[in-house]
Amino acid sequence: MVRRYLEVRSLQESLKILTTGFVCSASKVQVPLISSVGRVTAEPIFARYSVPEVHLAAMDGIAVVSAETEGASEQRPVMLEHAVRVNTGNIVPPEYDAVIMIEDVNVEGDQFRIRRAVPPWQHIRPAGEDIGETEMAIPSYHRIRPGDLGALAAYGITHVNVLTVKIGLIPTGSELVPHGTAPAPGQVVESNTVMAEAMLGTLGASCTRYPMVRDDPETIKKAVREAVEENDLVIVSAGSSAGTRDFTAEVIRELGEVLVHGIAIKPGKPAIIGRVDGKPVIGMPGYPLSALTILREIVIPFLDTCGLPVPLTGVVDGCLTVPVAKEVGTDEFILCAVGRIGDRFVVSPLSRGAGVQMSAVRSNAVLMVPSVTEGFEAGQEVRVTLSVSRAEAESSLLITGSHDPVLDHLADILSRQGIRLHSTHVGSMGGILAIRKNECHAAPMHLLAKDGQYNIPFLKKYLPGEEIILVCVAEREQGIVSREEIHLNDLPRYRFVNRQKGSGTRMLLDYELKRAGIDPADIRGYNREVTTHLAVALAVKTGEAEAGMCVYSAARALGLPFVPVGTERYEIAIRREHLDDPRVRALIRAISSPEFKADLIRLGGYYTKETGVQRRLP
Amino acid sequence: MVRRYLEVRSLQESLKILTTGFVCSASKVQVPLISSVGRVTAEPIFARYSVPEVHLAAMDGIAVVSAETEGASEQRPVMLEHAVRVNTGNIVPPEYDAVIMIEDVNVEGDQFRIRRAVPPWQHIRPAGEDIGETEMAIPSYHRIRPGDLGALAAYGITHVNVLTVKIGLIPTGSELVPHGTAPAPGQVVESNTVMAEAMLGTLGASCTRYPMVRDDPETIKKAVREAVEENDLVIVSAGSSAGTRDFTAEVIRELGEVLVHGIAIKPGKPAIIGRVDGKPVIGMPGYPLSALTILREIVIPFLDTCGLPVPLTGVVDGCLTVPVAKEVGTDEFILCAVGRIGDRFVVSPLSRGAGVQMSAVRSNAVLMVPSVTEGFEAGQEVRVTLSVSRAEAESSLLITGSHDPVLDHLADILSRQGIRLHSTHVGSMGGILAIRKNECHAAPMHLLAKDGQYNIPFLKKYLPGEEIILVCVAEREQGIVSREEIHLNDLPRYRFVNRQKGSGTRMLLDYELKRAGIDPADIRGYNREVTTHLAVALAVKTGEAEAGMCVYSAARALGLPFVPVGTERYEIAIRREHLDDPRVRALIRAISSPEFKADLIRLGGYYTKETGVQRRLP
Repeated sequence: MVRRYLEVRSLQESLKILTTGFVCSASKVQVPLISSVGRVTAEPIFARYSVPEVHLAAMDGIAVVSAETEGASEQRPVMLEHAVRVNTGNIVPPEYDAVIMIEDVNVEGDQFRIRRAVPPWQHIRPAGEDIGETEMAIPSYHRIRPGDLGALAAYGITHVNVLTVKIGLIPTGSELVPHGTAPAPGQVVESNTVMAEAMLGTLGASCTRYPMVRDDPETIKKAVREAVEENDLVIVSAGSSAGTRDFTAEVIRELGEVLVHGIAIKPGKPAIIGRVDGKPVIGMPGYPLSALTILREIVIPFLDTCGLPVPLTGVVDGCLTVPVAKEVGTDEFILCAVGRIGDRFVVSPLSRGAGVQMSAVRSNAVLMVPSVTEGFEAGQEVRVTLSVSRAEAESSLLITGSHDPVLDHLADILSRQGIRLHSTHVGSMGGILAIRKNECHAAPMHLLAKDGQYNIPFLKKYLPGEEIILVCVAEREQGIVSREEIHLNDLPRYRFVNRQKGSGTRMLLDYELKRAGIDPADIRGYNREVTTHLAVALAVKTGEAEAGMCVYSAARALGLPFVPVGTERYEIAIRREHLDDPRVRALIRAISSPEFKADLIRLGGYYTKETGVQRRLP
Repeated sequence: MVRRYLEVRSLQESLKILTTGFVCSASKVQVPLISSVGRVTAEPIFARYSVPEVHLAAMDGIAVVSAETEGASEQRPVMLEHAVRVNTGNIVPPEYDAVIMIEDVNVEGDQFRIRRAVPPWQHIRPAGEDIGETEMAIPSYHRIRPGDLGALAAYGITHVNVLTVKIGLIPTGSELVPHGTAPAPGQVVESNTVMAEAMLGTLGASCTRYPMVRDDPETIKKAVREAVEENDLVIVSAGSSAGTRDFTAEVIRELGEVLVHGIAIKPGKPAIIGRVDGKPVIGMPGYPLSALTILREIVIPFLDTCGLPVPLTGVVDGCLTVPVAKEVGTDEFILCAVGRIGDRFVVSPLSRGAGVQMSAVRSNAVLMVPSVTEGFEAGQEVRVTLSVSRAEAESSLLITGSHDPVLDHLADILSRQGIRLHSTHVGSMGGILAIRKNECHAAPMHLLAKDGQYNIPFLKKYLPGEEIILVCVAEREQGIVSREEIHLNDLPRYRFVNRQKGSGTRMLLDYELKRAGIDPADIRGYNREVTTHLAVALAVKTGEAEAGMCVYSAARALGLPFVPVGTERYEIAIRREHLDDPRVRALIRAISSPEFKADLIRLGGYYTKETGVQRRLP
């Protein structure tokens, strides 16, 4: 039996159904001031008393009647009889109206000689200087900042009424194991409600994660009924699609009403909006990035309309590095890495797989491709919403080209300096293209020319006349990874896994196959492509392939035998104009650092003699 | 006895002494993943296993051998015998290499009829698609975001090693009462360590607030000794100056060494950097904004060099609204309200009083006026560091002009819409000037002309030909606030407190005095100026003055008698070009809202007949 969605609704329609169909308003909860940072005030906060409550001395000195100082000068000092010694912060007795600094006073017994007249109210902090009794210190709907706390404490505030929405999170799925348990093959760690609690909790929602329930309608129904009773909003994680083992829609329908099943967004289409006992019940898809999208685009805007405000996000306009194609009729949300190259922002889309959570980790922005379009072209200016501060987005170092696991170690070193390295794996030729379009700060590559030279012949050909610096990362060994020490000459006898066209590794393989007189057509799996060294090793480890080509460190990481094929020069190309960019300078420093060399040696298969050596073009 | 600072050091020197004089490095502490949001990773996080670990079906359908589907078409369907039913997320058995969606299959008993050939790996999530075993998910020094948590949970991470620095906070001062106790006059709530804990704790420091100690060298010494033993860094709050009751420097000198006493910054000069048992001990001044400045400019940069990274802050360039004068030789830090007017940012400095904590609450940026300058001129372009996101700074609504307590209630209404109202009280004439220079969105005013008209004659005179909209906030009663129902004609018999020159209230007073034939010179305190209605009422309540002029709501808030003098039109002037600004539109809507009218009636002394009525110029 094939079940279908009732009717797929647009994002806008779905949000309207949610925001107009429910009376959900954030409730007040009292928290101690000390733990109120990041929470949102439910009502204005008024000062309990004036600060200061009475006039205070602002300096160490003497309190005086200003009128009595009239006429005092160097030539004609005045001796004050009605003054009194005060320290900073002391009460100025009501009969006085000014303070003279002790440095300007000659103390003579009980009397004070002064040499300058002072105006009334000099060096006095008048009552209410900071705030007056009953005055509003902070309005409603204000997200409390650390710097607000000192003031509120001083104004007599010990507890704050803040806003919250109670949200019940129900994880469903027979394949789930709880967070902290290692999953057997085919099992999945229940992580979506962990993410939901973190995202919604940060906004001020009070989340309850209910125990996991297996794919059984009666059990799910019981859990939903309980959660609806105890919360303002319920999110059922997974089972929201229209498959034979998806029960969320059926359960909501039996307990109440399904208002929307299927939203025209990607990822996240199999979402549900339902109503049970007058409360909203959201069916959140099980794919992590679908879940993330539903949280970000449906649940969080809904919380905002419930009165739990959402921090404003920044937007930037940037140049799209690759084309983005999609079907008309769906709003698609694509996670991106955004960085500033020269004086413009560059937007680099990340993997669109709904199961690829690393895209969320790697991203700093999200691009919305609207329903009515078929996508965007490469080079087009697009507007993205930042998920980090603009300053942090500007600190991104964009690296595009050939992949090597040591890039992660460079990222780790740079992270200590506040620089976030975003690397896109498009192979060495893709890197040259990115340099040509000035869409990255640096492009790692290892392209072997017919004359045995690395990289320079290709840069000369594809970037003629451009000023380029090549920084050597390392000379590294490539070889055949397998479970039984397979040699290059034996490849036609085994199932192979290849790297993508345009990658240096693929070109090295083709070069070596040709030298060995082997026809690629004789190798099974030659057309099966993956994009990283570790993916090659992993395909071998899982039995998907029997052999592949990768760097030594990837084979070693998974404990697989490795038969060297050749040593190549892995270099990073940088446009000369970016050499003054502090991020690029930090990258070059990181490559030459002893720490990085130690990493290379520890990982194995890298020769560090050339590490940090620079070559220049033209 | 007058004690002086040893030698005042520049901010830069002081920071250098601190960062080069100590070996302080952040330590690792393990926290559960669930509570790791906002913390900074102490080391890279690697995936414990691949996700997925084996090939999974990406769709509900059948797992097939792709080669067996070759040649299938609508005309020549193929019957598959070696296929098997799979649901999304199920393991694809090793003998299969593709999945066909169930919608494209005719199920006939144990067999499946298909009408289209499929390529290998269609609808399969390959092992390691998200991340490979051993791959780095997150580098060191990464501040964990809510969106990272799902991925980390899925990759088998249950605990995270994060960075921290242990900081001991010692509040000193005999005048202190603990947070939560109402201070008697002359007492102060101990709020600086509350603020320090919030600011430093947010960055990941582990703060311990020690019990308050009174101004006694031996007691302070004991507390410092204990705190130094238990922490990486100790901050002694207050007592850091060179007065007779300031013991921090003496205590540090006896226990160790004073490296710096007196830093050439304002506010915050009386700061101390000392060393006890090889650990840094900071003497933090007692004035709240001095303390804030030392935390922000000294302690936080030091934490960064200890390896506890500080989030990047944004900067914007904006036009300064008023001149800022200072002495050469001191780096001065001025809290500001920044907003966007048209296409430029405007920077409005807040009160520079070191005791005015409301400046911290009201500010969204900090302006540094460097040591070598005497200040900046009005209209000069200056660079400020934002303390909020750029998006939030852009949401500011800047209001400059005459003060009325109801502005706080408008702020409260607008806050719900994510708009932050910053109001600067410079009197009605100051507001006209701000409108002329286009340095605010709106200017509240109540200027009575000789012909009995409000506001328009002044706008015509000072902004000839400009297109201005006036929106009436309310007609409001002004009168004499006192403790014994003093009337205007009796003013010469009492001590008075006045409003500042250029304020509408002062002009109304002068108008009424003239009508009554009273000479201002006969009123004691006529030259004593404060800048808000509540400050007038407060001066009366505390006995500083016996009478003043203010709006009814201010008198009522403090429970004081009020004798009406006149009713005036309190309007907000807006340049017509800003009418399309969403913040300005929201302001106009807020003024006309029933909620605001209810506020006016509740506060008392406002007539709402004209509320929301617009007048246009020219």
